Amino acid sequence: MSKKSKGIGAERELLHKFWANGFIAMRAPASGAIKYPSPDLLVGNALRKMAIECKTTNSEKQYISADQIGQLKKFSEIFGAEPWVAVRFNMTLFDTEGWYFISMDDLKETEGKNYVVSLSLAKARGMLFEEVIR
Amino acid sequence: MSKKSKGIGAERELLHKFWANGFIAMRAPASGAIKYPSPDLLVGNALRKMAIECKTTNSEKQYISADQIGQLKKFSEIFGAEPWVAVRFNMTLFDTEGWYFISMDDLKETEGKNYVVSLSLAKARGMLFEEVIR
Repeated sequence: MSKKSKGIGAERELLHKFWANGFIAMRAPASGAIKYPSPDLLVGNALRKMAIECKTTNSEKQYISADQIGQLKKFSEIFGAEPWVAVRFNMTLFDTEGWYFISMDDLKETEGKNYVVSLSLAKARGMLFEEVIR
Repeated sequence: MSKKSKGIGAERELLHKFWANGFIAMRAPASGAIKYPSPDLLVGNALRKMAIECKTTNSEKQYISADQIGQLKKFSEIFGAEPWVAVRFNMTLFDTEGWYFISMDDLKETEGKNYVVSLSLAKARGMLFEEVIR
């Protein structure tokens, strides 16, 4: 499975989980169309809106480009939504279903000005799906 | 041009207009994926969210199925957005750019339990783009 298709699978998994818990979740249309900033998922109910960038990894670290984070923040600010990065660490699938939600404040900047979410940071600071929907 | 592709063109036109006026506008992904209710456009800024079903017509009447309106209302209620139907009457393109925004209360039910927006109703009760973004 390509990196791209793994990402789409992960997005869809979260999409179903949010719908199953009473939220609207909308995927961005396939790129190639017009280029406006757009998160992987826009999630909301009457009380709360979240713009979510979804990642899945088999390693203990997930890197995210400064550009993606910049677009996520910009989209969220204009729309009025909370920006989140959701990372599924596949090695933890058995104990937590793997998903951790990381706020912008908890992203760690790399030397190359990009961002990284490590599994240890996710466990220490991330929220689980059940916490995010509460 | 098929009915389907005309609809997509109209959606994109509105998408650009909203972005150009400081709103986020997101198209629903192409159908065929998973079937959750989804409007043609989800538009928002920090103050206001709108779920919009977009139509374009060469005639003086635009029909909309009860099912589409039902889905639009359901989506809007869960997400916390205002439901709107936007109809572009192509014959009016020269004087108003053609777009009229119709609220749910102003849709007229047909005998077959579907809905219709006539040009005269749109002129009497609809809002122009400039009014919607104000």
